[in-house]
Parts: sequence; structure tokens; C-alpha cells
Amino acid sequence: MTAPLHDERRGTSGARLPDTQQGMRRRNLSRVMHAVAAHGPLSRAAVASRIGLTRAAVSTLVDELIRAGLLDELGPERPGRVGRPGSALAVSALGPVGIGAEVGVDHLAVCAVDLRGETRARAEQRVANRGRSPEPVMEELAVLVQQVCAEALKGGLSPAGLAVAVPGLVARDTRTVVRAPNLGWHAIDLSRVLPTDLPLTVDNEANFGALAELWLGAESPEDFLHVSAEIGIGAALVVDGQLLRGTRGFAGELGHVPVRPEGPACPCGGRGCLEQYAGEEAVLRAAGLRPAEQRGEALAERATAGDETVRRALSDAGAALGIALTGAVNLLDPQAVVLGGALSRLAPWLLPALEQELTERTAGRACAVTVSGLGPDGPLLGAAHSVARAVLDDPVGVSGGGTAQRA
Amino acid sequence: MTAPLHDERRGTSGARLPDTQQGMRRRNLSRVMHAVAAHGPLSRAAVASRIGLTRAAVSTLVDELIRAGLLDELGPERPGRVGRPGSALAVSALGPVGIGAEVGVDHLAVCAVDLRGETRARAEQRVANRGRSPEPVMEELAVLVQQVCAEALKGGLSPAGLAVAVPGLVARDTRTVVRAPNLGWHAIDLSRVLPTDLPLTVDNEANFGALAELWLGAESPEDFLHVSAEIGIGAALVVDGQLLRGTRGFAGELGHVPVRPEGPACPCGGRGCLEQYAGEEAVLRAAGLRPAEQRGEALAERATAGDETVRRALSDAGAALGIALTGAVNLLDPQAVVLGGALSRLAPWLLPALEQELTERTAGRACAVTVSGLGPDGPLLGAAHSVARAVLDDPVGVSGGGTAQRA
Repeated sequence: MTAPLHDERRGTSGARLPDTQQGMRRRNLSRVMHAVAAHGPLSRAAVASRIGLTRAAVSTLVDELIRAGLLDELGPERPGRVGRPGSALAVSALGPVGIGAEVGVDHLAVCAVDLRGETRARAEQRVANRGRSPEPVMEELAVLVQQVCAEALKGGLSPAGLAVAVPGLVARDTRTVVRAPNLGWHAIDLSRVLPTDLPLTVDNEANFGALAELWLGAESPEDFLHVSAEIGIGAALVVDGQLLRGTRGFAGELGHVPVRPEGPACPCGGRGCLEQYAGEEAVLRAAGLRPAEQRGEALAERATAGDETVRRALSDAGAALGIALTGAVNLLDPQAVVLGGALSRLAPWLLPALEQELTERTAGRACAVTVSGLGPDGPLLGAAHSVARAVLDDPVGVSGGGTAQRA
Repeated sequence: MTAPLHDERRGTSGARLPDTQQGMRRRNLSRVMHAVAAHGPLSRAAVASRIGLTRAAVSTLVDELIRAGLLDELGPERPGRVGRPGSALAVSALGPVGIGAEVGVDHLAVCAVDLRGETRARAEQRVANRGRSPEPVMEELAVLVQQVCAEALKGGLSPAGLAVAVPGLVARDTRTVVRAPNLGWHAIDLSRVLPTDLPLTVDNEANFGALAELWLGAESPEDFLHVSAEIGIGAALVVDGQLLRGTRGFAGELGHVPVRPEGPACPCGGRGCLEQYAGEEAVLRAAGLRPAEQRGEALAERATAGDETVRRALSDAGAALGIALTGAVNLLDPQAVVLGGALSRLAPWLLPALEQELTERTAGRACAVTVSGLGPDGPLLGAAHSVARAVLDDPVGVSGGGTAQRA
């Protein structure tokens, strides 16, 4: 009652189609695609009952989607049954694919995901990207993109767009990397340095990781805080199934929530930020390892082997995470906190102290802490799926409008 | 691109009308009402150009709204000009009003706001509600509601609903007060104890205060964190012009964000929560005043008079607020932080230390801190406006569906 449905003062969301006959048709085409993608194969009648339109209306929409090559008719279903059989619809195994890419501190990866959510091609490469300038990194990435696109084209698929996950803050223009401290990049418009003809979207890896969890995760709550880490600690908030990006696109900086306001200075300008207690470098140091030579993998290996110093360091990091998450849970009241990315591997040693702090400090207001099943692939999959889902969200905008391009 | 427009997995939002001809008509009726309410008087042609529909379509919608008594035709405009004059439309001065109410620790207040946003009737009463059981408080409130409704009816207005602001956590059913520590209420379904025939909505005073700021504030950003205080410290998050309520309706508990994790124990179960440094009781104690006998007003009076102990207590509270807000700004990246309610009066002494902490700790990511111009009336106005705006959001649902009732 209190939240206005259509408020003139709301900003134009960009994604919202106009409320006209044409806009309604496009939204209903999208509903048909989403219904078949999520629950197909489905008959026209089943689609109609799922999305609350008449069978006649659905048939018109379906015919348009078949003509556009987005849906396939599988032929009569239930051949042994009495009565006129309905023909089952499925999302086409050909047609558009989303290309996702990830720029990591020590790897590059690209994959192609079709409208049914299946990964159809993949390429990756280990490479130390820390401190490299963006141009050579983007050129290497473009080679992998071309490789994956060529494989997709050979399979009868057409790349609909490219989404790139980066470990840093990305402006709301979804092109500009504002700051990626672990790469050493500042204010880089990736659309200027990445040689591709595909429509390009760039976003923070934590955001794509959270979207992957939303779309592909086993539990899939609609409101959660996804916490991930590569070298820094990032988080992303999903509210009502939508990513909360913040005014400048900088939301989710859990790593710079103050844990102890008089604690050690942080390169961000603050003091006692979470990263000073639970960031990879801080934990490696506390574990008696040398950050320049080791990465997070070493922590998991040693903790598994029973190294008490490493386990204590991870437990202390878990406690600091619990304190920072107490603030986040009080502010956001999410349904769950999901540990993803590198943190999912360290969860066995982080969780006990994390949950103890969070539970004691939020008596009666606590929320579940779960561990992502997607592991380190989350951001890459989230990127590729975001492109595929954009096609489902506006199928004729892509298939009819001719925005599907080739690399 | 990454946020799906229509995702089958999104929960049904309740507020979203079905995507049918009938749903489209209702949404477009709402657009006409909002356009005229925000920018009227407007001609049919001006409405059409604002909302992007044809003049013919707008005329049909306008005729329906005039018949429902929601719009008035003011007669030909620009009588001295050449050409066929358009007739200007205005929101009716009669018709539905929203009734808002506030239950405070030491007062009750009720007002009626019409669809043009004007306050048409008001009643209030000083009364010490702390520790009283809900029944007598709600009976006294009902008397004020009846008084305001009677005045509205006499003026040709019809109350469309009642929204009540309370100082506590409210469940997402918008009826149940889960916990209002300063009243001593726990798990009270107000719809069972408040004698009224009006459709009832109950919400946290911080939420209604934030909505008032969104709808009536001078600066009116679309993304902000509204911080208010009566005895506790509450906050409400507005994202893209919508209130972020949290899974259980508990979002915005800024008062229990840890400031110093080893700090004093808090009744919430945590330690070193913001309320232990910047809550009214803590500040009164730090200022050498006795919380049982004094309220926040005393702080403003003494600080104005130059009392150094009080000023230092407020400055320390401001610093604690700055630390907690650093966490909130890092997580949410709002466009602004707005100090409202009782905090707006104390802002001159809170702000310097608050802004210093926030700026130093969020170098390059800081956001503006502003002071609300609505003062302590925010929650009451937000409540009444929420009802009036619900009528604008679905005008025929109310005018045509017969849900407008009388107290």
C-alpha cells in the first residue's frame, strides 16, 4: 500500500517497456519464453495456464517465437493417449547464446550459454594479470571470445552479446571499471579496449556471482547477500530477485565495513575495515604465509591438512566476517547470507566463528548462512546467463530487432 | 541487461497488476492521476504528451476518472488565446482522503491528506504511552481517527484507509507490531485492537518518515538512507524510489549495527551497537542528564545554550553515527543520507563529527549528508500520504471497486 506502483517521480528504469499494446505484446512474448525455458517442454495450453493468458493469445505469441527461431515444436505429445494431442514446445537448441567472460587476477575465462541455460562452449587460460595494463589483457580475452564464438557459430548458435566480470568497482554505465585495485586498473572504459562487435556489458564479479546464485543456486532465495572473495572481499545484494547496485554502482563493499574503528589503516582510507581481518592478504599473514608467494588455495590445503595456525587465522577471519555481517543483516534483513567464490572452499573453517558472532549479536533477527554450490565458476556463469536471460526478457527486441550480432 | 524484466522466479509482488487489457487500463488510469496530481492543472493534450499515450486514449481515461469523482474539469483555459481552448484538469478537492496516524512514546496524532497532498484535518494529544497496554492506546487513537474522519466527511471527503506509524518493528503483513521496546509491546496484531472500519496498514515510523522524505522532501533523491530517532535509532532505505523492507520487514536496524564489537552490552543481545553510543538514553547519560526525567528536547536546548558537556556528548554520538553509516554507505551506495525526526533538531552538533568520520573512512565513495526539512511530522505525513497515493496508484480499484469506506 505504501510503495507507489507507478510514480511519476520514479526514474525511468530503462528496462521497463512502455505500457502500450506493443509493450504488452513484448512482455507477454517474454513470459512465454521464460515459462518454456524454466518448465518446458510445455504444450500451448500449459503455457497459457502458467502465465494466465488465453490459449488463443498464447498461440499467436508462440507462432511468432517459432518463426523467430526461438521456440521449437517437438511434435505431438502423449502419442498413446486418447484425444487431440497438444504439441510440446521447447526452447530452440539453436538460436542465440550469451557469451560470458571473466577477468581474474590469475586467469581469463569465456563461455557460451544457450537459452536453455546449457554451456555450449568454453575456453580459459591461466595468466598473471596483476599489474598488467588493460590493453594486452583485453586482447588476450578477445582471442578467447573469438574462439568460443567460432565454436558456437559452428554449432548453429549466434552470440547475442558479451558480459565481462571484473574484480573491481564498475560504474552504472556497465562499461567503465572505476577501480580494480588487484589489477591496478583505474577509470578504464573497457568498451574502448576490448576488440569485439558484440553488445558489451561489464560488471563486478560479485554481482555476476550473486546473479548466478539467484538463477542457478540450489536454494535460490529471492533476498540474499552473496559474499565472495578473490583477493578483496566483495558482496552483492539481491532484493526481490533484483540486484541492488547502488547510486554509482558501488553497492556491496562489505570489505570496507568497519569492524574495529580504531583498527589498522586500510588502503581505502578507512581504518579497521573487514579486509584488514578477513581479506586474503591479512589471513595469509595471520597464518604465517607470505602473501606475495601464496594464494587462497594454500589456506584450504593447509587447513585440510590440520595446520592449527591456519585454522586459527581462518576462525579469526570468520569472526570478523560475522561482525561485519551483523551490520549488514541489521540493515538489510536478508533471507540468507550465501558464501560464494573462494569463500565457499574455506567455509568449513570460517563458518563456526562467523555463525557464533552473527547469532549472538542478532538474537531473534539472525538469518541463515549457506555455502554456494557453484564454487569459483559463479561469476563466469552469471555473466553468460545474464546475456541469455536478456534475450528471454525481450525476445523480439533481439530476434526481431536485429541486435544479434556476430563477433 | 543483467536484471531480468519478467522472471518467472520472481515472487508475485502483489502490487503488480496482471498484464492484460484490464490491467493496462488500470495502470494507465493511475498514470493520468499521478500526472495531474504532480503537475496539474493540465489539459488532456498535456497529460497525453506527459504519459506517452494518444489524446483519444487519454480522453477515455479522463472521462472515467471524472465520472468517479477523482478529477475535475476546470473549464476552458487560456480564454484570451486563439484556437480551440483545452479544458484544464485538476485532482478533485472532494473525493478520497488518506488518514494517517502516529503512535509516539509521548503523543498520538492523526491527520487527513487529500489526493492533492493537502492536509485537510488534524488532531493530536500528548500522552505518556510508555508501558501502557495496546488496547487503551488504540481506543484513544480511534477517538482521534473518528474526529478527523468526521471533519473530513463534513468537508465532502471520504476516508479511503488508515495507515498507522509505530515506533517498532512491524511484520510484512503490515498489521503486526513484532517488537516496540519503547512502548513495551510484543507481537501485537493492531487490526485486532484498533476499532476502525477503515482498511488498515501499520508500519514502522522510520519507514513512513522515509516515504514522506521521498514524496515531500525538498531534495528528493531516489536512493537514500533516512536516519531518524525517537528513543532508539531507526533507518529506512529507499532504493529507486521504493522502500526496501527486508524479508521479514526488519530492514533498517541501523541502531544495532556494531560500532565497537567489544563495546557495552545492548538489550538486543549484541555488544557495542550504535544505540549504545548514539541512542537517546546513552547521549543523555553522557551529557550528565537523567534519562528517566529528560527527553531529547533537553539536549537541543542545552546545546543551543552552549553547554559544553552536552555538545561533547552529541559530537561523540555523531562520530559513532559516522562509523555505522560508513558501513551502510559501503553496503548500499546511496545518493544521500538524510537525518530526519528528532535527529534533524540535533544535526548542528552531530554533523561535524559524523561527516568527518564518514568522509575519512569512505574516501572517494562518500555521499552527501542532508537534514530533513519535515522535522518530527515526517512519519505522520508519510502515513497519510501513503493512503492517498495508494488511491492514485489504482484509482478505479478504489473508486470503482467500492473499497472506500467510512469510519
